[in-house]
Amino acid sequence: MNKTLLKIGGSILTNKTGADISSIKRIAKEITNKNKLVLVHGAGYCGHPEADRLLGKSEICVDTKGIYDTHRAVSKLNSIFLDFLSDEIPVVPIHPLNVVIANDGRITAFDINCIKNALENDILPVIHGDIVFDRVRKFCIVSGDQIISYLARRLDVDKVGLATDVDGVYLDGKVLEEITEKNISKVLNQDYHLGKTHDVTGGMLGKIKELWGLSVESVIFNGSTVGNINRFLSGEPVGGTIIKPSRIEDL
Amino acid sequence: MNKTLLKIGGSILTNKTGADISSIKRIAKEITNKNKLVLVHGAGYCGHPEADRLLGKSEICVDTKGIYDTHRAVSKLNSIFLDFLSDEIPVVPIHPLNVVIANDGRITAFDINCIKNALENDILPVIHGDIVFDRVRKFCIVSGDQIISYLARRLDVDKVGLATDVDGVYLDGKVLEEITEKNISKVLNQDYHLGKTHDVTGGMLGKIKELWGLSVESVIFNGSTVGNINRFLSGEPVGGTIIKPSRIEDL
Repeated sequence: MNKTLLKIGGSILTNKTGADISSIKRIAKEITNKNKLVLVHGAGYCGHPEADRLLGKSEICVDTKGIYDTHRAVSKLNSIFLDFLSDEIPVVPIHPLNVVIANDGRITAFDINCIKNALENDILPVIHGDIVFDRVRKFCIVSGDQIISYLARRLDVDKVGLATDVDGVYLDGKVLEEITEKNISKVLNQDYHLGKTHDVTGGMLGKIKELWGLSVESVIFNGSTVGNINRFLSGEPVGGTIIKPSRIEDL
Repeated sequence: MNKTLLKIGGSILTNKTGADISSIKRIAKEITNKNKLVLVHGAGYCGHPEADRLLGKSEICVDTKGIYDTHRAVSKLNSIFLDFLSDEIPVVPIHPLNVVIANDGRITAFDINCIKNALENDILPVIHGDIVFDRVRKFCIVSGDQIISYLARRLDVDKVGLATDVDGVYLDGKVLEEITEKNISKVLNQDYHLGKTHDVTGGMLGKIKELWGLSVESVIFNGSTVGNINRFLSGEPVGGTIIKPSRIEDL
């Protein structure tokens, strides 16, 4: 069964004041081709500030009260998104806090029964980046990108897309058409200014690391360009950067 | 490890207009003794109308779009409750839709990892009655009462309470002190007026059926009486009807 995995970046669902309703409405309308689609979204400004407050630059979380604040922020964004999606199509929300266990920051268990049941019943499962229990760190953030990477391996997927707020992966000032074994080390070693713009979920470098090593092609494209998300789901070209399958599983 | 299971009836968290904020606030403040507590709550007026619309008196659900409406209604009540609870103690919400699979209306699988992790980290897990995937009916409602009954068997529990809006189980116009093998058949066979006041989750008769057969004592008490929930959690008497453990597993 051909399944599609699409991640909608938190950056295009939110703005500095919170949920970006007009963008969410527009994106929800573009998701018409939901057949065997699994949707994942990030937190953007709904969740990242809470996660920053909770974790700071540390990876060990001790404030058990702040966990609900972080989950609530991204869960609320998920609800707003689903409220618009559900006007058109049947949906179910999936909260990683309930179904994922991590081990030192990486997903080690994921109860995917609800996702499978949703797909079988032609219902769109919508998952979000979240805070989850972690065997080593007590809690950790699992990004939408890591969820995409995990599910691409676990489900029988033949199409993976990441809709972001940029045109793709830049190298030397230009958008790369593709990332292959030939240019991957140059791509990974360029300066992504991570130190300046701290992102708890890893930013663009994090996305590339999650997608590199998949056995299926994936594309990082601009989802803020009107129509692109619908084009991706319809199998039409969306530009962006294609990340070719690679045999190198670990970086 | 001694665990306590407490269900807060939807009837005392809601009124005819929706969430009953003053009652929710009062109840949240009574839950101070959260040590090894697992909390379950019903839907009341937030969820039952949606479930009625979705299922009517039928048990087979075909409207996949209405599923989100039902889940959203009770999930929203859960969020409001947790917002107040989280002012005092660390909490996590648990959504059965994500972790439960039913078989012809009964829970057949329940991923309890999140509950266990919460308990280990001294965080209060708060579960709600919900709509879930069902192998036979596609979807079904699992009541808070059924969840209590399931978790009482699955977790190592030594105390079970159901906080309702009545003083206990009535027989011949009086509240019964206890239900034992001596009076169970009389209790089960009296007229609960189920035909007149349709309740998708089974009403008082449903509660008794869920609790009868547990290997641990349970009590149905009045949670709308101020202080009773706190008294139950502190091990003080709360009146109500005690349902004695029985060896009869099936009715």
